[in-house]
Amino acid sequence: MTAELISVGTELLMGNIVNSNAQFLAEQCAALGFDMYYQVTVGDNYGRMKAVIETALGRSELVILTGGLGPTEDDLTKEACAEAMGVKLAEDAHTREHLKRFFDNHILKEIPENNWKMASVPEGALVLDNGNGMAPGLILEREGKTAILLPGPPGELRPMFLQQVMPWLQKRQRQALVSRMVKICGVGESQVEDMLLDLIHSQTNPTIATYAKTAQVDLRLTARGNDKAAAEALIAPLLREIESRFGRAVFATEEHVTLEMAVVELLKERGLTMSTAESCTGGMVAAKLVNVSGASDVFMEGMVTYSNEAKMRLLGVKEETLKTYGAVSRETALEMALGGAERSGTDVCVAITGLAGPGGGTDRKPVGLVFMACSLKGKTEVREYHFKGNREKIREQSMMKALDLVRLWVMAEG
Amino acid sequence: MTAELISVGTELLMGNIVNSNAQFLAEQCAALGFDMYYQVTVGDNYGRMKAVIETALGRSELVILTGGLGPTEDDLTKEACAEAMGVKLAEDAHTREHLKRFFDNHILKEIPENNWKMASVPEGALVLDNGNGMAPGLILEREGKTAILLPGPPGELRPMFLQQVMPWLQKRQRQALVSRMVKICGVGESQVEDMLLDLIHSQTNPTIATYAKTAQVDLRLTARGNDKAAAEALIAPLLREIESRFGRAVFATEEHVTLEMAVVELLKERGLTMSTAESCTGGMVAAKLVNVSGASDVFMEGMVTYSNEAKMRLLGVKEETLKTYGAVSRETALEMALGGAERSGTDVCVAITGLAGPGGGTDRKPVGLVFMACSLKGKTEVREYHFKGNREKIREQSMMKALDLVRLWVMAEG
Repeated sequence: MTAELISVGTELLMGNIVNSNAQFLAEQCAALGFDMYYQVTVGDNYGRMKAVIETALGRSELVILTGGLGPTEDDLTKEACAEAMGVKLAEDAHTREHLKRFFDNHILKEIPENNWKMASVPEGALVLDNGNGMAPGLILEREGKTAILLPGPPGELRPMFLQQVMPWLQKRQRQALVSRMVKICGVGESQVEDMLLDLIHSQTNPTIATYAKTAQVDLRLTARGNDKAAAEALIAPLLREIESRFGRAVFATEEHVTLEMAVVELLKERGLTMSTAESCTGGMVAAKLVNVSGASDVFMEGMVTYSNEAKMRLLGVKEETLKTYGAVSRETALEMALGGAERSGTDVCVAITGLAGPGGGTDRKPVGLVFMACSLKGKTEVREYHFKGNREKIREQSMMKALDLVRLWVMAEG
Repeated sequence: MTAELISVGTELLMGNIVNSNAQFLAEQCAALGFDMYYQVTVGDNYGRMKAVIETALGRSELVILTGGLGPTEDDLTKEACAEAMGVKLAEDAHTREHLKRFFDNHILKEIPENNWKMASVPEGALVLDNGNGMAPGLILEREGKTAILLPGPPGELRPMFLQQVMPWLQKRQRQALVSRMVKICGVGESQVEDMLLDLIHSQTNPTIATYAKTAQVDLRLTARGNDKAAAEALIAPLLREIESRFGRAVFATEEHVTLEMAVVELLKERGLTMSTAESCTGGMVAAKLVNVSGASDVFMEGMVTYSNEAKMRLLGVKEETLKTYGAVSRETALEMALGGAERSGTDVCVAITGLAGPGGGTDRKPVGLVFMACSLKGKTEVREYHFKGNREKIREQSMMKALDLVRLWVMAEG
């Protein structure tokens, strides 16, 4: 099936907001196995919107429209789409009731008359109740074409898509579709692709799609079958094959699991506590771990020792070490990790020291040079990295690699 | 002038990445006073790309294309655009030389032959050297229409646009356009709009556009005049008026200045050093400060005291305080800030303790309750916040408000 996205909103054309809905819906459509050739953004203008919808319906089987479903005069998506598809609008009693409940719950003293505009829906449309806002979503089918209209706020759109649209689309597919995510850290994108070349080249069902992120590559495996069990049976051997090729570089096979969640989970399993000792990452590793609800079970404390004085006082790094080898050195990283673990009384401590730039680099120690060390009950592992990119990029890569170092070292020695 | 964006890349259609370029360019075009009616995303497909370019050139005066300028066979933007505009490609000696230098600098042992494809440019095109990558940007003019081709990676596109494209576009405008940014922290979006209602309603030249971010509202003031001085003269009184209405809530009037930069700058000016003592933000405040190149002049160290034990040992919070008032309390925040400043020997310490959720909330202390304290040479200020949103949102708001607290307290007492 070919799918096309139309994002409606002058705020997108003015650059006030990033179009995260397009990314979300595009990824969902890809997971459903749809082909997408176009995404269009258009403002709150009836004529231009209608023309864009007509073009889309002419070249794509499924058109997903977002935004412009609200109560104001600017909100014209439903009207333009209904006209483009030759359908009339009529008030829907169920939606009027739903809206009334929403207003009651939100103790709106006065309901502006134009709010009832949201209760009028194209005839024959399937109404999708909005559990997180006012405007309902809509599914319209006509002459072999489908239009799905969704509210613009991501907090309304995402649950509506996942809970109502996704199952509806899945049901209409002749075949069941199952998709699994494999998340990899420590292997670059091109190397991942090299290692999967034979599988990618021979792919038809299941398919493999790669998504490169900072210091992380995600693989989405998607299989079709006559039913869910058949699709899952197709994915299982591919998943096993990929896991065996990448081994411990695979940190998750679930869509929602992040690297920091994998680290927290692993430490919980092994009954280990941890701390951080950060210089160039300046607290990013700690902040990432605290992202995980429940991190307090394993993460005790973090030291951001940006100055040499703090490295000595808080972590017990020796003055001589700093003088002889410098703050950015294998030796300093090691003492930071050992000192951090000792001072905090945690089982694990990961330390990061490096040159994030833009200034401060030398020939011998260029910007991008980062040392990190992990200590686990006294056993240590040190890594040296040469990252590319700007300050932000170098720090972000350092953070990810540090989390991964904890994961690998605990798996090896824990 | 009407402007249109065409983003090229299958990775956008697959949802692998968010289209942040579209937001950036749309905002820049709005700042230039251009009208944008359409944004289109299309894949690396020659036929579809050429059709999309032709449609865009038919309805918009300026078309900005991003992506698809690289060396691979998939990169077809330049070819499709040149054909759509009826121009031939020819090798450009300057660009070949520029590429050669790039390869030399990056010590590429083998230069794949297809890399030289990037040296071929449409005849008559203005070449924009790429200071951060390989593929040059291009400006093509033909029959009253302009196409600007930019490389896809934001780290290449953004500096190229700001340093080369922006001045080129400004020079061609009959009127001079001057735009200033006013960045506000501590006043919500709707309140900002209320406070500016009279100015917004009467706006024609200069105009005011609002951009809401997390705990921050940006205002872009744009004026047109016969020359730069005339436009600036129009902006100056509006800027003064807005500054007087918002007072210290304005932390920057320069586009590139972030809140953390304003804090670091202020501390530098006053000759003050600082440290952080974080609980629920888990190192985010420290990490944000370290974002600023040169933060090491003022930021000495950070303590992430996630456990109560760490709050006592690293910051000297009294056990009694934790028992009587709890970790999330005004009293604990105060002791964290005072203890942090004392232990680290810094002039300023900001402390944050709160409930980021999703678990752990009670009726008396609900999720979203955050206390923060700032100590400045013994003088302290404590704030209590009730933030809304999920864990991430609560932590992000806490981080911003903590940075702002440092700024305000140093201005008041420093």
